Amino acid sequence: MNIKRLEGLLKKVKSGRASIDETLAQLKSLPFEDLGYARIDHHRSLRKGFPEVIWGEGKTSGQILSIMKELKSKDQNILITRLDAKKARAVQKAFPTCRYSPQSKVLTYPTHPVRTEGRGTILVITAGTTDIPVAEEAAVTAEFMGNRVETLYDVGVAGIHRLLSERKRLEAARVLIVVAGMEGALPSVVGGLIDRPVIAVPTSVGYGTSFGGITALLAMLNSCASGVAVVNIDNGFGAGYMASLMNRL
Amino acid sequence: MNIKRLEGLLKKVKSGRASIDETLAQLKSLPFEDLGYARIDHHRSLRKGFPEVIWGEGKTSGQILSIMKELKSKDQNILITRLDAKKARAVQKAFPTCRYSPQSKVLTYPTHPVRTEGRGTILVITAGTTDIPVAEEAAVTAEFMGNRVETLYDVGVAGIHRLLSERKRLEAARVLIVVAGMEGALPSVVGGLIDRPVIAVPTSVGYGTSFGGITALLAMLNSCASGVAVVNIDNGFGAGYMASLMNRL
Amino acid sequence: MNIKRLEGLLKKVKSGRASIDETLAQLKSLPFEDLGYARIDHHRSLRKGFPEVIWGEGKTSGQILSIMKELKSKDQNILITRLDAKKARAVQKAFPTCRYSPQSKVLTYPTHPVRTEGRGTILVITAGTTDIPVAEEAAVTAEFMGNRVETLYDVGVAGIHRLLSERKRLEAARVLIVVAGMEGALPSVVGGLIDRPVIAVPTSVGYGTSFGGITALLAMLNSCASGVAVVNIDNGFGAGYMASLMNRL
Amino acid sequence: MNIKRLEGLLKKVKSGRASIDETLAQLKSLPFEDLGYARIDHHRSLRKGFPEVIWGEGKTSGQILSIMKELKSKDQNILITRLDAKKARAVQKAFPTCRYSPQSKVLTYPTHPVRTEGRGTILVITAGTTDIPVAEEAAVTAEFMGNRVETLYDVGVAGIHRLLSERKRLEAARVLIVVAGMEGALPSVVGGLIDRPVIAVPTSVGYGTSFGGITALLAMLNSCASGVAVVNIDNGFGAGYMASLMNRL
Amino acid sequence: MNIKRLEGLLKKVKSGRASIDETLAQLKSLPFEDLGYARIDHHRSLRKGFPEVIWGEGKTSGQILSIMKELKSKDQNILITRLDAKKARAVQKAFPTCRYSPQSKVLTYPTHPVRTEGRGTILVITAGTTDIPVAEEAAVTAEFMGNRVETLYDVGVAGIHRLLSERKRLEAARVLIVVAGMEGALPSVVGGLIDRPVIAVPTSVGYGTSFGGITALLAMLNSCASGVAVVNIDNGFGAGYMASLMNRL
Amino acid sequence: MNIKRLEGLLKKVKSGRASIDETLAQLKSLPFEDLGYARIDHHRSLRKGFPEVIWGEGKTSGQILSIMKELKSKDQNILITRLDAKKARAVQKAFPTCRYSPQSKVLTYPTHPVRTEGRGTILVITAGTTDIPVAEEAAVTAEFMGNRVETLYDVGVAGIHRLLSERKRLEAARVLIVVAGMEGALPSVVGGLIDRPVIAVPTSVGYGTSFGGITALLAMLNSCASGVAVVNIDNGFGAGYMASLMNRL
Amino acid sequence: MNIKRLEGLLKKVKSGRASIDETLAQLKSLPFEDLGYARIDHHRSLRKGFPEVIWGEGKTSGQILSIMKELKSKDQNILITRLDAKKARAVQKAFPTCRYSPQSKVLTYPTHPVRTEGRGTILVITAGTTDIPVAEEAAVTAEFMGNRVETLYDVGVAGIHRLLSERKRLEAARVLIVVAGMEGALPSVVGGLIDRPVIAVPTSVGYGTSFGGITALLAMLNSCASGVAVVNIDNGFGAGYMASLMNRL
Amino acid sequence: MNIKRLEGLLKKVKSGRASIDETLAQLKSLPFEDLGYARIDHHRSLRKGFPEVIWGEGKTSGQILSIMKELKSKDQNILITRLDAKKARAVQKAFPTCRYSPQSKVLTYPTHPVRTEGRGTILVITAGTTDIPVAEEAAVTAEFMGNRVETLYDVGVAGIHRLLSERKRLEAARVLIVVAGMEGALPSVVGGLIDRPVIAVPTSVGYGTSFGGITALLAMLNSCASGVAVVNIDNGFGAGYMASLMNRL
Repeated sequence: MNIKRLEGLLKKVKSGRASIDETLAQLKSLPFEDLGYARIDHHRSLRKGFPEVIWGEGKTSGQILSIMKELKSKDQNILITRLDAKKARAVQKAFPTCRYSPQSKVLTYPTHPVRTEGRGTILVITAGTTDIPVAEEAAVTAEFMGNRVETLYDVGVAGIHRLLSERKRLEAARVLIVVAGMEGALPSVVGGLIDRPVIAVPTSVGYGTSFGGITALLAMLNSCASGVAVVNIDNGFGAGYMASLMNRL
Repeated sequence: MNIKRLEGLLKKVKSGRASIDETLAQLKSLPFEDLGYARIDHHRSLRKGFPEVIWGEGKTSGQILSIMKELKSKDQNILITRLDAKKARAVQKAFPTCRYSPQSKVLTYPTHPVRTEGRGTILVITAGTTDIPVAEEAAVTAEFMGNRVETLYDVGVAGIHRLLSERKRLEAARVLIVVAGMEGALPSVVGGLIDRPVIAVPTSVGYGTSFGGITALLAMLNSCASGVAVVNIDNGFGAGYMASLMNRL
Repeated sequence: MNIKRLEGLLKKVKSGRASIDETLAQLKSLPFEDLGYARIDHHRSLRKGFPEVIWGEGKTSGQILSIMKELKSKDQNILITRLDAKKARAVQKAFPTCRYSPQSKVLTYPTHPVRTEGRGTILVITAGTTDIPVAEEAAVTAEFMGNRVETLYDVGVAGIHRLLSERKRLEAARVLIVVAGMEGALPSVVGGLIDRPVIAVPTSVGYGTSFGGITALLAMLNSCASGVAVVNIDNGFGAGYMASLMNRL
Repeated sequence: MNIKRLEGLLKKVKSGRASIDETLAQLKSLPFEDLGYARIDHHRSLRKGFPEVIWGEGKTSGQILSIMKELKSKDQNILITRLDAKKARAVQKAFPTCRYSPQSKVLTYPTHPVRTEGRGTILVITAGTTDIPVAEEAAVTAEFMGNRVETLYDVGVAGIHRLLSERKRLEAARVLIVVAGMEGALPSVVGGLIDRPVIAVPTSVGYGTSFGGITALLAMLNSCASGVAVVNIDNGFGAGYMASLMNRL
Repeated sequence: MNIKRLEGLLKKVKSGRASIDETLAQLKSLPFEDLGYARIDHHRSLRKGFPEVIWGEGKTSGQILSIMKELKSKDQNILITRLDAKKARAVQKAFPTCRYSPQSKVLTYPTHPVRTEGRGTILVITAGTTDIPVAEEAAVTAEFMGNRVETLYDVGVAGIHRLLSERKRLEAARVLIVVAGMEGALPSVVGGLIDRPVIAVPTSVGYGTSFGGITALLAMLNSCASGVAVVNIDNGFGAGYMASLMNRL
Repeated sequence: MNIKRLEGLLKKVKSGRASIDETLAQLKSLPFEDLGYARIDHHRSLRKGFPEVIWGEGKTSGQILSIMKELKSKDQNILITRLDAKKARAVQKAFPTCRYSPQSKVLTYPTHPVRTEGRGTILVITAGTTDIPVAEEAAVTAEFMGNRVETLYDVGVAGIHRLLSERKRLEAARVLIVVAGMEGALPSVVGGLIDRPVIAVPTSVGYGTSFGGITALLAMLNSCASGVAVVNIDNGFGAGYMASLMNRL
Repeated sequence: MNIKRLEGLLKKVKSGRASIDETLAQLKSLPFEDLGYARIDHHRSLRKGFPEVIWGEGKTSGQILSIMKELKSKDQNILITRLDAKKARAVQKAFPTCRYSPQSKVLTYPTHPVRTEGRGTILVITAGTTDIPVAEEAAVTAEFMGNRVETLYDVGVAGIHRLLSERKRLEAARVLIVVAGMEGALPSVVGGLIDRPVIAVPTSVGYGTSFGGITALLAMLNSCASGVAVVNIDNGFGAGYMASLMNRL
Repeated sequence: MNIKRLEGLLKKVKSGRASIDETLAQLKSLPFEDLGYARIDHHRSLRKGFPEVIWGEGKTSGQILSIMKELKSKDQNILITRLDAKKARAVQKAFPTCRYSPQSKVLTYPTHPVRTEGRGTILVITAGTTDIPVAEEAAVTAEFMGNRVETLYDVGVAGIHRLLSERKRLEAARVLIVVAGMEGALPSVVGGLIDRPVIAVPTSVGYGTSFGGITALLAMLNSCASGVAVVNIDNGFGAGYMASLMNRL
């Protein structure tokens, strides 16, 4: 439509029905969206090979299914986060090739194969076993965005040798995601051991003054190790996405 | 420059040196700023008759003077907020027709006369006498933006008759700004008495659990009276600006 | 009773049984409530054409129905906010002409037709789709208070072109309500684009450090754009009411 | 027993079986509780005519019943706060003369008639109707502690005339309890109108930034009216108890 | 003027130029402030024998002196709180009979002798020696409002015997003010020992997590002893005022 | 295994099958855990006679059972905290010699008898009866870690004589754990009475501004008594563990 | 005096001048402090060999000197904390044998030699160099209370090998004090390495979201290592005192 | 040295002077740092070409100079952050080739030329002019760590066209650092426009409810744009360091 309008303007210029000055004035007053600006975004994920992401929380399975159908018609890979098991069953019924991870509450629907375009390995580390669901959200996201992902779980600082004994794996990673609740100390130790960017993910694991992850978040923001940046509490998806951007650099 | 580029494109179309399809492609990839979009903002204050605003805090008098010179050359009225007395003296030396209010720390520099374009009266009310500096910031701002402004000070809720005895003035205003610290209750009472929009301004007046204005802010956000909206703590300028927009409706 | 006492006083004056001075003294000492003062309020909504508002939360359907019956007898339009679906069904059974919006939890009961007295259009904007219920509360309120209302949903700042492509609608509005959760950035962008008052409504959409809307609220209070005032978290009703007052100016 | 021990010591002194120095040393090492100190507390409520108070929350009905039986055997009046309806039914089955108020969740069990020993009237005021359960907790407590209690509900500051029209009742009270949620402004207005002590009770009524009563609490602590003191959020019992102590002065 | 209007109305009634019904209608619509309502407040402190209170903080000595002159002309006793030493010197120069307490920063100016109208003794207690300035503010206020005041300092809970050894003085008081910083535990212990109302005053004494008195405030609001109400942090004046109201009951 | 590898290396050196330089290189590249470092941890609880601890929250009974089987095979005593009743039943079915305390939600499974190695008595004190579940968690933990444990419940500061009358038991303890919610004052009083280390445990008992234990926590951190250290809210286990370490000193 | 009174009572009993019943009544009514109870506290520090402690903050040098003179006359060792350099000079002038540490702001005045009564070594560890003043406060306190103290500074978790390389010293200590600001992770790592009680001291070192030590405090309270208890922010003295109590066990 | 010790052990094994068992025992007890572990850290900055970093705050110029001398002797480049002007002058006197930026308070001392090893350009963006000092800290850090750095200042969201008109520069960057105070919305908009990792830096610019940068921080953590991670408030250095690690990927 906009294209047609532009085409019309140009045809008038070409044919002499409109002067150059008139046309210039009209072009300047064209709202920029008429130039197809909005479409750039439209193609972003396709160009990058990234999946489209749907935040499952607060959407009905009906709403999710209709979004999926639309995206499928564009041959987009689809990643749904924070999708509870009940809705996931409804989605899997309609799209049987979906994979759903109940632990991380992530559903992936590949309409085409994922190509590994990340250059190195993303290593996802947790302090405890209760941090694993958040870590899995990060891992599934990063994998589905085309990365090799490894995991190293339950290596919290109260038993520091557990981490140190895996130093080689730490050093082999290109980007690290460190997931921890409670006192959130693990990213500081990891950041001190290696020279790669560390994405710290605070989790809501803990009780009392863990304040649903605030303590871990604050600790991570105040890390005495350089090379640590932080995402929102329990935001495994955000960490996986950020790590994917880094791993394509 | 952009205009020239556009002109060139059109000339090529006209002369047949470029096809319509080629030109369409180029037009779509033109960054929109090349269409002069950015200039709309440029003319906004002139069109509206609003002054240009400079936040005085954290700028040296040298920086402020050079911004003022540039704006003066465009015949803009200038309003500087949060300007301490020392910097104000430096500015007044260079621009002797400035007016400076030490209480509100606002400096106004009219390069052309202010036209009253606000339709009604803006009434600025305070709970106590220590709230007056913030109220004055609002009053000076609104006046300099072209409004009739009246003030009604020290009518806090602990002596409710002081407010009630001025009910006629409350009802005569088109927009009301209510400034209060401590428990911040005044906007609720005012909002319950009249049917005009009330802009509530919490101040940092108080001690202990007044928390530098947070208590007043929270009270205002939870007003049981409808028709109250809130700005940041001590933000007299913001209230004056918002009231000016309303008074032009 | 008070009326009778007043009447008695006047009769004594008339008949000469009381001097004017004596009567003056007595009148001055009369508590003002004896003068029927309280009734002024009673007529406020009728005069303005505003509906009576009932806060549905924490009231039983029985309580609500009895209030409605009383108001209906006075031919008042009625707006009930925060009414859950179960109570709404009970109300609709008794008053079949009610309209109930399950999304916004608002019930409207027009005992007489709503007259559009607002001068321009109120535009309600949301950052995301999960902000829509709060936006709908604002929209229904404003409409029922006699305004033309338009909506523009899901134009959050992470895809800024979505907003920019609707710039004409932004500029056509007389008052804007901007509803956003998470980082609450949308009102700043909108406030920077147009010269109309913006009412910002933070929502409790988000997780982790969104703190149930506090982050959005704080961001809105600290907007770098002038012309933005804020209401309580999820307070769509308050925004709709405030916008209605503005739109009658 | 302690008395016996003391008696024994003195007898030994008298009879010369123990030297004065030995006895002095023993007396100094006597734990003070052996002097009957602890018993003072034991008789406190009986002396004052106050009921014994049981905090119902977190106790099973079994536990409550066994405490009640023990207290009944001492002819104590009993007041149970925060008792849910289910437990109340169990208590009422065992003690049919109990009275239970489902709204305030208070159960009273008079083993003997309550004597009115408070000198004046305690007036309990609320800002809104949703504050009434907390107010009732205060009222029932004060009544059961031997006071005349009156109530004045739904006179919040957004319709200030509602309060002002009841000024005579305010002035007739000896002690006032003012209960309010949301912005918590009512105690300031009441405290400014009368010269009697005001006990302010913040309630958890509200949403968003009411923060479960914190906003009301902060507002009350920062009251610009003198003569206001504050109790914990929703602590109707505490206010009723405090008022009772005052009303016996 | 209002009086004249009223007089006119009555004259018309008397002369038969206005019917009683017409006059009634007009009287009902008279704004109450026209009835001289505001003057009631004007006489409050004179009637009660209370001093006028000036909040010294944020006022210049010039402003304070001019308020004092006005009040002196009405033969009012004057109490100034939060007055720093420098301003106090200026005031004492002009009014040599003033008394100034540098510790509590309170200045009292008796234009006429203070009459002791409080019925019993107000006892002011502190936990530590650093709490004394706040306690003195309370004590001076209560004394100047006509009460017998005693003090009991440095009897904090870490040496509980210090308090217990003064139990007789505790029991002799009619009203108690308990001032404490740090963990704010003293009011709970005092409230458990006696059957009189306790006004708890948190102070900003402490460091780290004392948060400028918030910890003490929270502890006092959560007192497990009944009969404790709380004022703002460091609000010795408020406690003294509240205690004075109680001691007149 | 590591030992075997090391042994192999040394044998090769000894037999001349490997040069010293080669062996040096291999030794340097050996991950340090291969040197048995990691095993120190492995044997820690056995050496000390401490049980292995499992945090029951967030683990399924299946997961818990499989951990228990593994630990049992190593003849470890097992302590499970925060285990709800339902999971406990499943565990007890599989390991009938378990003991489960529903109040403290602690399950203990002694694979071998607990030896009392703590030197003195650990005394666990509570302010109220609702603090008992947390106290029990501390008591069971300390007992299972080889200590004599005594308890003294419901001796809060509002009835200070209850505590004072037990002074002998306080003085007989080697380490004290003091558990309190609400205003959290008890550790200050206990710490002032005795010269032994006090571990303070805030509990989430209370309502309103008790903020789920934060008030108690803050009060304890600000204790005016020396010799008090604090653990997380409701962390009875942590207090019991800490006390056990102290009691072995 | 009390002793004399008691002696008098007993002599009367012995001589028959007073009956046993009379004497019993008098003994029971004796305030317990008359039994010398208060003196127990008086002798506490002497018995234990502990110094008397003065909190220097908020006291004038005059006040401090007069307290010191009184204590000196009782041959008490004196420890003054939070004493600024200026006051320290005044004290040192009067008591030249004082030692003052400007870094920790602690002044010690030994009126008699300190005897080492602590059984083992107290090790004071810091994460960074800016934490040292707080650590020194702890170290000086512990030393002056009769302990062998060692220090290990700047072994924060971002360079974990610095800590690990000192493992032998960690294991040699009987009690550990771990001082850290920023993310406060060090106590968790230390607590995981050794089986001795760890006292964690958060410091106000950091900026932004370190919130003056709150982040470190929260992290320490949420330590995933058992055997860690926490004192107030910057409370080196409290840690030193607590460690001293432990080291005497 | 360690190598020598190891070599010695092996020689003894080879020669038969030590048994394999004895040697095994010694090897196991070798502290791991003796294996050269600690040195890895020692060489880290040299290997990477990174400068050594000194946190200038809280160190005297004397301390700083002595650290610098030591580092210079190792031919390390040195970066000092948060160094005030006075200390900087002292440093520059001793090391005249230092460069000091008073705005960012960063001092750089190149002992050898910085090699550009970062692959692309790091773009540092600010919302306002008052955010520039923090941005400069980031820029200087990144440059000194071997990166091409560009800056784009004062493009905040209230004038969104300012940012959009620079879209090409945004897209040309490999890593972006976005610095903003107040409502902190800029990273969301930038993150939505480009597909590169964004490091968000909240600044303490603002007043009232900006809470010294907390509002901006929270907004950034809740960004609705993916690909954003956050560092501490005002932590320009941390952002520059993190970006450098990314730009070497």
